[in-house]
Amino acid sequence: MIVVCNRIPVHPDYFDAFEERFKDRAALVDGMDGFISFQLLRPHNAEHPYTVMTFWESKDHYEAWINSEEFKQGHAQSGRMPSEAFLGHPMLETFDVIQSTAKIVREAE
Amino acid sequence: MIVVCNRIPVHPDYFDAFEERFKDRAALVDGMDGFISFQLLRPHNAEHPYTVMTFWESKDHYEAWINSEEFKQGHAQSGRMPSEAFLGHPMLETFDVIQSTAKIVREAE
Repeated sequence: MIVVCNRIPVHPDYFDAFEERFKDRAALVDGMDGFISFQLLRPHNAEHPYTVMTFWESKDHYEAWINSEEFKQGHAQSGRMPSEAFLGHPMLETFDVIQSTAKIVREAE
Repeated sequence: MIVVCNRIPVHPDYFDAFEERFKDRAALVDGMDGFISFQLLRPHNAEHPYTVMTFWESKDHYEAWINSEEFKQGHAQSGRMPSEAFLGHPMLETFDVIQSTAKIVREAE
């Protein structure tokens, strides 16, 4: 299992608008082959970036997603924020999930 | 729900030793009140930090954990790595989970 973290520095004035962009997007990714889960994370400290996390069964599944029509569709819908909404470029970090435990399991919320 | 990300820059020569530290630790945190899940993430790019993620029902639950005997016990056990194992100080980032979806749910692996 891998996780892809897209770290996006957002100006606090644009937090609400940024979150609004994701309202209709989860439905695009969650039908993809190899998709496990998605989380949108709002930083407690405004100097830290928003983090968009997606868990995938493998890197190949993730790459199939970023080359998909659904991906283009989701990002086309969301490309309407002004440049001053962002405090820097997005930073992509990918990881292998080495160890994972859970007490409570949630399907969606 | 919140997530706490401890971002720890580890020298590639110490990846195995670093992961070894976590082998016995999950059992300490997963009985804590308000604990949801834990993931240990190994970076694909060695310039990115390892990320230790814990999800909690609230910030209060997380704070109770870091003040607990179990937390002290886990960190005492793991404080035996040399300073050259780390490429910098750990960086803590905390977030609210704004949106979350999942297709496949795993209890542990």
